[in-house]
Amino acid sequence: MFKTFEVHLFGGSFALPLPILVSVIISIGAYFVGLNLIPKMKTMFIAAKLYGTDMNKKSQPKIPEAFGVVTGCIFLISLFLFIPVPFVGSFSNGNMEEFPHHKFVEFIAAMLSICCMILLGFADDVLNLRWRDKLYLPTIASLPLLMVYYTNCNSTTIILPKFVHQFLGTSIDIGVLYYVYMGMLAVFCTNAINILAGINGLEVCQSLIIAGSIILFNLIELFTGQYRDGYEFSLYIMLPYAGATLALWKYNRYPSQVFVGDTFNYLSGMTFAVVGILGHFSKTVLLFFIPQIINFIYSVPQLFRFIPCPRHRLPKHDPKTDLLNYSKTQFRVSDLNVLGKLSYFVFKHARLIRCEEEQDGVVTCNNFTIINFAILLTGPIKEDKLNRVLIVFQLICTGLALVIRYPLAHYFYEY
Amino acid sequence: MFKTFEVHLFGGSFALPLPILVSVIISIGAYFVGLNLIPKMKTMFIAAKLYGTDMNKKSQPKIPEAFGVVTGCIFLISLFLFIPVPFVGSFSNGNMEEFPHHKFVEFIAAMLSICCMILLGFADDVLNLRWRDKLYLPTIASLPLLMVYYTNCNSTTIILPKFVHQFLGTSIDIGVLYYVYMGMLAVFCTNAINILAGINGLEVCQSLIIAGSIILFNLIELFTGQYRDGYEFSLYIMLPYAGATLALWKYNRYPSQVFVGDTFNYLSGMTFAVVGILGHFSKTVLLFFIPQIINFIYSVPQLFRFIPCPRHRLPKHDPKTDLLNYSKTQFRVSDLNVLGKLSYFVFKHARLIRCEEEQDGVVTCNNFTIINFAILLTGPIKEDKLNRVLIVFQLICTGLALVIRYPLAHYFYEY
Repeated sequence: MFKTFEVHLFGGSFALPLPILVSVIISIGAYFVGLNLIPKMKTMFIAAKLYGTDMNKKSQPKIPEAFGVVTGCIFLISLFLFIPVPFVGSFSNGNMEEFPHHKFVEFIAAMLSICCMILLGFADDVLNLRWRDKLYLPTIASLPLLMVYYTNCNSTTIILPKFVHQFLGTSIDIGVLYYVYMGMLAVFCTNAINILAGINGLEVCQSLIIAGSIILFNLIELFTGQYRDGYEFSLYIMLPYAGATLALWKYNRYPSQVFVGDTFNYLSGMTFAVVGILGHFSKTVLLFFIPQIINFIYSVPQLFRFIPCPRHRLPKHDPKTDLLNYSKTQFRVSDLNVLGKLSYFVFKHARLIRCEEEQDGVVTCNNFTIINFAILLTGPIKEDKLNRVLIVFQLICTGLALVIRYPLAHYFYEY
Repeated sequence: MFKTFEVHLFGGSFALPLPILVSVIISIGAYFVGLNLIPKMKTMFIAAKLYGTDMNKKSQPKIPEAFGVVTGCIFLISLFLFIPVPFVGSFSNGNMEEFPHHKFVEFIAAMLSICCMILLGFADDVLNLRWRDKLYLPTIASLPLLMVYYTNCNSTTIILPKFVHQFLGTSIDIGVLYYVYMGMLAVFCTNAINILAGINGLEVCQSLIIAGSIILFNLIELFTGQYRDGYEFSLYIMLPYAGATLALWKYNRYPSQVFVGDTFNYLSGMTFAVVGILGHFSKTVLLFFIPQIINFIYSVPQLFRFIPCPRHRLPKHDPKTDLLNYSKTQFRVSDLNVLGKLSYFVFKHARLIRCEEEQDGVVTCNNFTIINFAILLTGPIKEDKLNRVLIVFQLICTGLALVIRYPLAHYFYEY
């Protein structure tokens, strides 16, 4: 489709489409702009009273907050500058009758959804929006994506695994349910990263790993599988995202000099949803969210208030030892509703929580996040070590995802 | 093109395309949502320390600031909900091969540019960005618009007035200069409203009049001139804008309960630029900006620092009389550069400024805005009266614009 560019790496050589090369260059540019811009903007954020206290440090320093908006803007500007590139061929051709408007609209819709989420995230960081806004606003922001999907592809057929072929056939068309699934994907991705957060660098690092996993998957498909526009489209989005985010990570990693805010989590989640939906690999994207899915399921009893949920569920810092311990919630079992009692019973007997029951019936147990669960396993731990534990878990899950996507899927599905 | 709907009004009846009817309904909805939401959000903004002091009141009350972001979000959500409507025919047709992607991308690009400006404006309100960011960010935000213009139309020909036909021909193709003009239009519109501001309700009211003028112009063209997609597109954008803004005006008019912030000015300017560019009437849009253009030209000596420019150029409130007087700047003529001396000389002799020269060579004169100039003409004046004077001027200019656009243009141009 495009002019390619010979790349020599690891002794071999392969052909890289020219737009990907430009995207790599822009992404490196985004990285250096971020590296340069973020420290300069710290005073601006503090002057605007956008800062938070780092509760997990002895000195409890004031850290400027919501720097995701800086990364988001760098990312957006990179995309703005990049959009003409894949269409240069059509431009020089001169015949606008044949211009691939349907491809072009994918970029613009992707940027619209991402821009909306940056705006929403930043408004949330500044104004502290209500919970329900966080659910319906991403849904609305994903509407253009769904419309583009409808007009460009509208495939709502799911291929079924071999062992059900004789009962249900080789595939099933789930129709409008597929759109519901994609709309929920956007809401899930934006909120899933948001609830697996709270220690220095964790949001950014997990997002970088997910981005890296998607890039790796796209490259594998592009160079070994059959060529598909969607994977290239995904790379054009993910590369500058990774560049801009890497710069943020330099300042957000332990000990954090800046906090990323909800802005970053929303922006990241929507970016992953966008490439999944418009790249037509929305199920594979979910595979890279295994830790977030586990954390979400583990959190369900508190998220839906079956079990009392304090405003913050971060681990608790012990200033004497500088170690983190798991944070706790307290309740009386008799006060819980049926679902609360059921989840308490299941979690307790599956040893997923550690709880102490006092004589007056008051139960104290850890908050239901995998961050606290990790501390249950390791014991009190330093913040940077805890981060590393969770990151290694995320990496293992990416490996698992690739095993599911390749050998296992080839076993269960016909290709 | 669309199913039409018979409307009976003023004794006559005419056919209204169905999407315009839906747009009107959504716009009315946007108005009522704004009316309901804005007062509820005041405490949220004050809690986030987003407020400013109203300097032109005796009590100097604290007023929540940057409410343009609320209006902007209502406007965006209205557009999100509306986009499928004009394409319903293509959907039900079922043949996606013939889907008008090139029309669809205009909507998405318009929303992207508007969303970017809301984000930029809100970031400016919260973080106080530097001047140069305000110039290059709108330029970048208008890139997708220009690309859509290029791919959909790419007409860069200007029709020339009759009296030059024999020298230059009937039209001239200015090529890339046309894109430079459109890019600058976006920057001009976003900043022009921003510098004609500072008294209760003025930004919102002038924007409403510009919006109303554009709507009127579109309707005139749609019902009397030749039908053009661009005018319909413009109505789809301007109607919900007007609805959302009208609600804001209820709370921003004298005495203001909320301030609109840069967010609103940026959002409005970009919206006008968007409909001008993608509706293909960018020159006519500028005609509705006559007061802003006059204010800009009048401000040039201070904007480009030929004459010293204080941080705020608002009129000065006299707490004793509760009247506004013009605000002043001071300088020594000998300290000015050549352009400063020239503009001082011209403005003084054209009686555009009122200045007092003291014996030591220090000159005190009014700040160069048409708001201060209006006070020169009226004398000290109440804030709401001053607003009315400026609004009447804006209305007269709209009348003038329509005279230029119709009788005069028909005289000078062949149609």
